[in-house]
Amino acid sequence: MPSDRSTLIPALKNIATRLRIDSIKSTSEAGSGHPTSCASAADVMAALFFAEMRFDPHNPRHPGSDRFVLSKGHAAPILYAAWAEAGAFDRAELLKLRRLDSDLEGHPTPRLPFVDVATGSLGQGICAAIGTALNARRIKSDYRTYVLLGDGESAEGSVWEAADVAAMDKLDSLCGITDVNGLGQSRPTMWEHDMEQFARRWRAFGWHAIVIDGHDMGAILDALDEARRTKGQPTMILARTIKGKGVSSVEGHQGWHGKAFKKGEELDRALAELEKQFVPVPEGGPAANLAGQIPKPPSKPRGVDNPKPVAPPAYALGDQVATREAYGTALAKLAEADPRVVALDADVKNSTFSDRFEKAFPDRFYQNFIAEQVMVGAAMGLAARGAIPFPSTFACFLSRAADFIRMAAISNVNIKLAGSHAGISIGEDGPSQMALEDLAMCRAEPNFTVLYPSDAVSAERLVAAAASHAGPAYIRTSRPKTPVIYSNDEAFPIGGLKVVRSSADDVATVVGAGITVFEALKAYDRLKGEGTSVRVIDLYSVAPVDREGLIAAGRATGGRVITVEDHYAAGGIGDAVAEAVAGAGITVHRLAVREIPRSGKPEELLDRFGISANHIAETVKQLVQARSTKSEFRPLGADF
Amino acid sequence: MPSDRSTLIPALKNIATRLRIDSIKSTSEAGSGHPTSCASAADVMAALFFAEMRFDPHNPRHPGSDRFVLSKGHAAPILYAAWAEAGAFDRAELLKLRRLDSDLEGHPTPRLPFVDVATGSLGQGICAAIGTALNARRIKSDYRTYVLLGDGESAEGSVWEAADVAAMDKLDSLCGITDVNGLGQSRPTMWEHDMEQFARRWRAFGWHAIVIDGHDMGAILDALDEARRTKGQPTMILARTIKGKGVSSVEGHQGWHGKAFKKGEELDRALAELEKQFVPVPEGGPAANLAGQIPKPPSKPRGVDNPKPVAPPAYALGDQVATREAYGTALAKLAEADPRVVALDADVKNSTFSDRFEKAFPDRFYQNFIAEQVMVGAAMGLAARGAIPFPSTFACFLSRAADFIRMAAISNVNIKLAGSHAGISIGEDGPSQMALEDLAMCRAEPNFTVLYPSDAVSAERLVAAAASHAGPAYIRTSRPKTPVIYSNDEAFPIGGLKVVRSSADDVATVVGAGITVFEALKAYDRLKGEGTSVRVIDLYSVAPVDREGLIAAGRATGGRVITVEDHYAAGGIGDAVAEAVAGAGITVHRLAVREIPRSGKPEELLDRFGISANHIAETVKQLVQARSTKSEFRPLGADF
Repeated sequence: MPSDRSTLIPALKNIATRLRIDSIKSTSEAGSGHPTSCASAADVMAALFFAEMRFDPHNPRHPGSDRFVLSKGHAAPILYAAWAEAGAFDRAELLKLRRLDSDLEGHPTPRLPFVDVATGSLGQGICAAIGTALNARRIKSDYRTYVLLGDGESAEGSVWEAADVAAMDKLDSLCGITDVNGLGQSRPTMWEHDMEQFARRWRAFGWHAIVIDGHDMGAILDALDEARRTKGQPTMILARTIKGKGVSSVEGHQGWHGKAFKKGEELDRALAELEKQFVPVPEGGPAANLAGQIPKPPSKPRGVDNPKPVAPPAYALGDQVATREAYGTALAKLAEADPRVVALDADVKNSTFSDRFEKAFPDRFYQNFIAEQVMVGAAMGLAARGAIPFPSTFACFLSRAADFIRMAAISNVNIKLAGSHAGISIGEDGPSQMALEDLAMCRAEPNFTVLYPSDAVSAERLVAAAASHAGPAYIRTSRPKTPVIYSNDEAFPIGGLKVVRSSADDVATVVGAGITVFEALKAYDRLKGEGTSVRVIDLYSVAPVDREGLIAAGRATGGRVITVEDHYAAGGIGDAVAEAVAGAGITVHRLAVREIPRSGKPEELLDRFGISANHIAETVKQLVQARSTKSEFRPLGADF
Repeated sequence: MPSDRSTLIPALKNIATRLRIDSIKSTSEAGSGHPTSCASAADVMAALFFAEMRFDPHNPRHPGSDRFVLSKGHAAPILYAAWAEAGAFDRAELLKLRRLDSDLEGHPTPRLPFVDVATGSLGQGICAAIGTALNARRIKSDYRTYVLLGDGESAEGSVWEAADVAAMDKLDSLCGITDVNGLGQSRPTMWEHDMEQFARRWRAFGWHAIVIDGHDMGAILDALDEARRTKGQPTMILARTIKGKGVSSVEGHQGWHGKAFKKGEELDRALAELEKQFVPVPEGGPAANLAGQIPKPPSKPRGVDNPKPVAPPAYALGDQVATREAYGTALAKLAEADPRVVALDADVKNSTFSDRFEKAFPDRFYQNFIAEQVMVGAAMGLAARGAIPFPSTFACFLSRAADFIRMAAISNVNIKLAGSHAGISIGEDGPSQMALEDLAMCRAEPNFTVLYPSDAVSAERLVAAAASHAGPAYIRTSRPKTPVIYSNDEAFPIGGLKVVRSSADDVATVVGAGITVFEALKAYDRLKGEGTSVRVIDLYSVAPVDREGLIAAGRATGGRVITVEDHYAAGGIGDAVAEAVAGAGITVHRLAVREIPRSGKPEELLDRFGISANHIAETVKQLVQARSTKSEFRPLGADF
């Protein structure tokens, strides 16, 4: 990289001008987008990509490459322009922005090889950047992570979760830049250009903060240099900028957020003004071809070892073990077998049993304290760089990170969420601690695998299956102890189910999962004693679901299928089974929690809220009765 | 209130001791709970309830009463003990803690008249407290709001969203107290007893911060006094405390979070130690009966006017109006009619059109900048105090507040969420801006009303219906303009549907909502041209759903029901309709978005992702064909 500032700075200024031109042209061609939010960041982007970062434009996923996360994802056009300028692809592609036939989407997604995680939901990129920075430590690489934030974005609480975690972890390989252009979407931002407001917050949170003029190229280079030399804490560069910089008619004007220049005179005038901003650069001088001089990443970092087989479960049938505890055991075994596996906690490791992982591999265990958004966001960044992260907390508190989970699905990252204490079966702690929407949340995402073990053996097997599966997954575990019902060598393929009771005389199929498998088994015993046989299914794989297996069971049992779940009625197991068997014309009768629950003993609550063995047995009886009398059936307690 | 500190302080100390004893007794009786987290807060609680707050123990919902929010909800037992001490109910009730037959749940819920919003998901109470403080302004009351936080809780980003908003709004009626006991659930907190870490953060965020010894009663009283006298900014009292204070065997010990003392020797020893901590109070002195001396709230604040009728919609059939725009129009009309209606924004008011409300009633419009958690949390607090809040943003970003929505359901507060830009029909901005899980999120909550208008008339009517309905509601609106199809006097009762096309010859029912109603109408026209009639339903009320109406349509159309929705397949309209008609033995064929979408033009995306008129028409034809040949049917593009 040329160190002669007198030639470097004009060359970078010209790149910034080209990035502005490209951002404006591409958004005008698309007819929508955020050119003014690109223009404010152009100088910072030019400096980062062409005088600071080490990367290979033709191999953006190189494991030792510096990372750049565009947390202000709506500035996507300038990200694309920078990569085109670096030679990653033909500049002409930029004009396909936002088209169905192009991967240059309105906001960045990992369909593009140079994007680690999808951004566009503000306040998430900085959380992912913590993950990529932690990953550098994991693989013993000295790559650095840069993240560009908007000023409006800094109102998101997740930014301050990230600020705490990065400072606590002393992530000096992380450098944030906040593009303080003072204007939000609908009005000026909270602090406009009062740079001290930003500086005092970041300093209070333990960061090294540097305030600069974000259009002064020398100041930008100095700040990046200072950040690189700052040890023991992350750095936030607070760049005072002008929204729309370079086009005088829109500079600092409200009403120009997310608005493309109209093709024709409006666009032409803007481009003409920018063209005049090119400055002379000494020909053939050291800064003549900055793209060609981008420093390549250092040789590949020390590879992590290949995974070994995971130690199998070691339980005796009938052992009383909570699935959350088996999760912890499985996680520690998995960590032993596969160095890519890492775990993240939000100060509940002694409840989720992820402390077993920490005890065995403290270096791969990341504590986030009570901050679920940064926990999931950091996991996304880790996953994007080759780790297999298991962030775990109470299942209900994963909803705190629902928007991150949505973006994890869009990113299709290899993240393994684990939620414990699902459902009303937690008992006395009451509704605030009961996850009753988590299956709906994760099933909604079309690429999520959703697993729900009932006993310790299935829990261990499903944790291993989730780790082996490529793509986002969710594992739901329960608080109460349940008996081991499977032998240690039982296999639990994703997309399968277990028929745990079956005979030729079964009059109905009862589909349970997790804790309700045991209610179904109790109902089975009671009905059996009365001379009635039912088939019992353990639907351990909620998504994908074993359609054929469910239809076969439904057909073999007179088309009578009952689901029972420790979850609200909408979006969970009943819906999953109903859709699966709809093609076969089978309708499903659903037992689920249908009102806001309350504190009580687990067994009291299962009965009070309609998902106990008692309710299952009564529903079976009514269903058989109804069919025999051809009357319309309404399950017990169900409020359609 | 006695001003003689020499008698007040020993009396308060004795109350604190009683609160500790009650918290320990009740959790031991329950066999679970958080006595040590109560013990650290006991002195602060005694001072707040018996020397600071103005309230009526027998009328806790008095509109002029000071508010107390227990953000660290796991300390519920000491909240209950304080209200019992104040005389709100018999102290013997405390021993029913966590029982199914008691409203004294594991974490506080508004089943109790002295609880405004449910807490227990950390970092939410302070957001709700902003709402109660804003409400004091709204009703021109001088009541104050106090909120007790945990130190571990301060890692939640939502706390810092609240910090920004409260400072920006200069909420000097808001006083936070952080119980810095230094211990989290599983380990010491991030900053343990380094009080400066807390103080510098709160000061950086614009609060008046006071650091005290949280067991020094005089210091607590001084700090509360200083907070009350602080104008123009909120105050945070940072109280250094000892977890388990008062019981030497557990004071400051790890491993005692969320653990009750075992009945028998362990409990007896703890109680004996506490009993010894009672101090002499001059008998008959001014502090002898602090509970009896709690200052009542001042006379009722100026009541707000009664609501007037809302101005009806005023459109012409065929007008092209986006439902999001009609939402903004309706909101402004509603504000005119009902002074209880308030609106909250997260810097997208020009996209959701809530800026129309702001223009008309700026005093009842609360800007939160890009911070969805505090927006929804503050709305919960406002709703708890009698306002009818409409927080609105892009529907996808409501998922940022999913955990708040979960707690809003538990609280059963009268909150009206509005999400715009639903689904792939937003087009070029891409998946990060597309809400495709929002119906699943809100439908999952059993007490949520979910409304989804298709045109401007239904949008206006449904906004008014949501405001009139008591309880949480969600309104989903779309980005594209759609034609007005209803006359201005059409009624849209919650729980209804509209049959928009119908004949005696209909071969199938197509159920759409929002944007897909128009795809269904296009399919209707195409099929009609080919001699096939279908029934078209606009399912504007997604929850509750009109079960009878759907079954009637299904039965009238050969049992063929097709749903089409701009939402992922799980948890949305398909599932809602399928469950509704299951009791009648009707299965449903679902068209929905079944993979992660991408940028493109709206009409391209509707077709690419399987929910266009083309897909509807083809599905109808295949379904009719399949039934006539009795083969098993699989809808076009559906991946079961």
